[in-house]
Amino acid sequence: MRRSNLPADGMRIASSASEWERLAATVMQRLEALGKITDERGRLTRTFGSPAMRRANELVASWMRKAGMTVRRDVIGNLIGDYAAQSQKSAVPSSKFQVQRAIPKVLLLGSHLDTVRDAGKFDGPLGVLVALACVQQLNDRPSRLPFAIDVVGFADEEGVRYSTAYLGSSVLAGKFDRRDLKRRDANGIKMEAAIRSFGGHPEALARARLNPDRLLGYVEVHIEQGPVLEQKDLAVGVVTAIDGQTRAQLTFIGRAGHAGTTPMCLRSDALCAAAEFVAAVEVFGRKKRGLVATIGKLEVLPGASNVIPGEVRLSLDVRHAGDDRRREACAALRKCGQLIASKRKMGFQWQPVNESPAVQCDRRLSDLLGQAVKKRQEHLLCLPSGAGHDAAALAAITPVAMLFVRCKDGLSHHPAEHASKEDVGVAISVLADFLKQLASRS
Amino acid sequence: MRRSNLPADGMRIASSASEWERLAATVMQRLEALGKITDERGRLTRTFGSPAMRRANELVASWMRKAGMTVRRDVIGNLIGDYAAQSQKSAVPSSKFQVQRAIPKVLLLGSHLDTVRDAGKFDGPLGVLVALACVQQLNDRPSRLPFAIDVVGFADEEGVRYSTAYLGSSVLAGKFDRRDLKRRDANGIKMEAAIRSFGGHPEALARARLNPDRLLGYVEVHIEQGPVLEQKDLAVGVVTAIDGQTRAQLTFIGRAGHAGTTPMCLRSDALCAAAEFVAAVEVFGRKKRGLVATIGKLEVLPGASNVIPGEVRLSLDVRHAGDDRRREACAALRKCGQLIASKRKMGFQWQPVNESPAVQCDRRLSDLLGQAVKKRQEHLLCLPSGAGHDAAALAAITPVAMLFVRCKDGLSHHPAEHASKEDVGVAISVLADFLKQLASRS
Repeated sequence: MRRSNLPADGMRIASSASEWERLAATVMQRLEALGKITDERGRLTRTFGSPAMRRANELVASWMRKAGMTVRRDVIGNLIGDYAAQSQKSAVPSSKFQVQRAIPKVLLLGSHLDTVRDAGKFDGPLGVLVALACVQQLNDRPSRLPFAIDVVGFADEEGVRYSTAYLGSSVLAGKFDRRDLKRRDANGIKMEAAIRSFGGHPEALARARLNPDRLLGYVEVHIEQGPVLEQKDLAVGVVTAIDGQTRAQLTFIGRAGHAGTTPMCLRSDALCAAAEFVAAVEVFGRKKRGLVATIGKLEVLPGASNVIPGEVRLSLDVRHAGDDRRREACAALRKCGQLIASKRKMGFQWQPVNESPAVQCDRRLSDLLGQAVKKRQEHLLCLPSGAGHDAAALAAITPVAMLFVRCKDGLSHHPAEHASKEDVGVAISVLADFLKQLASRS
Repeated sequence: MRRSNLPADGMRIASSASEWERLAATVMQRLEALGKITDERGRLTRTFGSPAMRRANELVASWMRKAGMTVRRDVIGNLIGDYAAQSQKSAVPSSKFQVQRAIPKVLLLGSHLDTVRDAGKFDGPLGVLVALACVQQLNDRPSRLPFAIDVVGFADEEGVRYSTAYLGSSVLAGKFDRRDLKRRDANGIKMEAAIRSFGGHPEALARARLNPDRLLGYVEVHIEQGPVLEQKDLAVGVVTAIDGQTRAQLTFIGRAGHAGTTPMCLRSDALCAAAEFVAAVEVFGRKKRGLVATIGKLEVLPGASNVIPGEVRLSLDVRHAGDDRRREACAALRKCGQLIASKRKMGFQWQPVNESPAVQCDRRLSDLLGQAVKKRQEHLLCLPSGAGHDAAALAAITPVAMLFVRCKDGLSHHPAEHASKEDVGVAISVLADFLKQLASRS
């Protein structure tokens, strides 16, 4: 089927199919509105602590209030809308002589409101607005759940301004590194000053970690940013894990020489060695299930058309949902580079740049999401996320789950980034059903 | 043998081995002196019409005069030292009633005095100074030959200032393109103005072509700029031809994508296609005798470590002494690129940049050089020149021949460029013997 159909039992989730359509239409309108809030004329760029972020936060806050939420901004500038739980009066013995109200737990929903440069409209905001649509629906009935829902619009996930990923979610996860406060943006403004002028409190960042005991989990809806759902003709899919990643800089060191006067047999051409390696990485990556390996940068030195390349520097990016598999792959690729270089009597360097472990999504939350997906589409696809998300940071303090939404041509970080209204409707209905099922088990 | 030995019959060429040593020592000292004349502090850079070129010309002119030559500068700024022929009184019937002196022919020797940026001391000046050493020897005896010798220090071969190769020699060959006069250097100075301020005459360039009927030929001594002589343990070699060259810009057009979210099987990675091509070019080049094929530039777009390369642009430089072979090779490589791209469902573009035909060296002059070489070293190596030289331009009006001198590690266009005093001595003795043999046959 080209688009997911609403099966008969879908009626049990919502009052009518037209309700999802209406909610999805609102989300699409709001994505358009947010897409116009930018720091750069003519293209969508919204970076941490910028005037556009302030305006975006104000607009989303107004929608949150409309959905019956109380709104606050935390110490780093994350926007949080709280939809209170149903009132509970269960007796909990706290001391010999007192009966105290149980504090309801909190389910976190959301995504980020910042963007990359010249961004699309869906990466980030979609997750916030789908969560908001679900809360709006609860509030419209009106209906409360046994747990509170905090919808978070994270202040910085893309890290454009300070080259720091997950700035917003890492604060809530207690993973913020205070040394980052000294970082300066392109205009020389320290992060510390940027947080302060955005209304935040740098001195309170270390104490902003959420209490894990109070959290039920974090669920994030996000466009897939890849082509798999589209290729399988599915509106949504459930994420199994966020891939771990190894980044390294590799160098092949041969000998530069005159392109005219050096016979082929007397050359030590670093680009020929690098080409052999690029080909080997592709073959290796295709053989290993779930592995992606990419050489995105390659620099030839000295880089003149009449000079044999003496040195080639290249980037390697390896990702897999299993950390052992990723490490094995990197070891194999490193050995492969060494072999190519030694066969050609060349130098070879492998410089680690960054390594981040994989984050597994919570089985229970993901199963609930999966059950909801199965009510909306014939097949349930569970897939790893090759890209990082706020869920990766929050996994340090609470179980996480993610729902991917099909995006056109797998395109992201691009103005043409798009998810259809129909697919957004599926995502809303899945998340609403998930909330209902979670509530029934709480 | 590590260094060439002077065989017994070497004594027939020169009065003593020590004479070559003395002449070579002078050449080495003069190379040092010229190597200090530069436009850039701390490194050797001497470009067309610059103050350093003026000082270099003055210094070389003083050496020319010492060797008994009359010195002139031509309309583009080439420095020409003329060593007159022996006086001839052979009767040539020019009209019924007159007996006229025959005008002696001219043998051109020399090379260029300009350099690349951060150059070595030998590329160019060696050929001028070896020629000068031979004339000095004739003048010291004193001795005249049946032909005049014009030693030329060409004003521009490297083309650094105006991106024009063979500027000096192309004027004497009648190949100067007047449109080049409008070219501007990095400071916006037109070539026309540069020629004028260097004492030249732009308006006379078109008439500066030498009369082919008066020329015996052009013989150039030059460092090899490659590793072949060193690898064969030979001091000098005779050039068979100057390779023809094809330059092209190639583009592989795939599809950029997220390095994390796009599975290997759904990628259209332009770098993987380019790597396959680079490898194919290497294999192809190694199989074809006398062919050199080089990819010296390779640019990856967009060029970020986390983005799959969407487009790769690369340079291709193919050279061979046979034009048909070179064209066949280019056609095969073009087809290879197309096949790689079509197999991967990618775009492929082949944009011709430049094509220059091969120039064959004159058999008679080269044979004479070869006979002289055989008196100085056990083996005669005849090899093509992969690099271009002034001889390529002058071949349009006169037979040309070239003698290559071994250079250390095949290195050129680099401050460490070096030829040994011993090898320079061999080059002087070979050129001197060549002159003697040519004289005996004139």
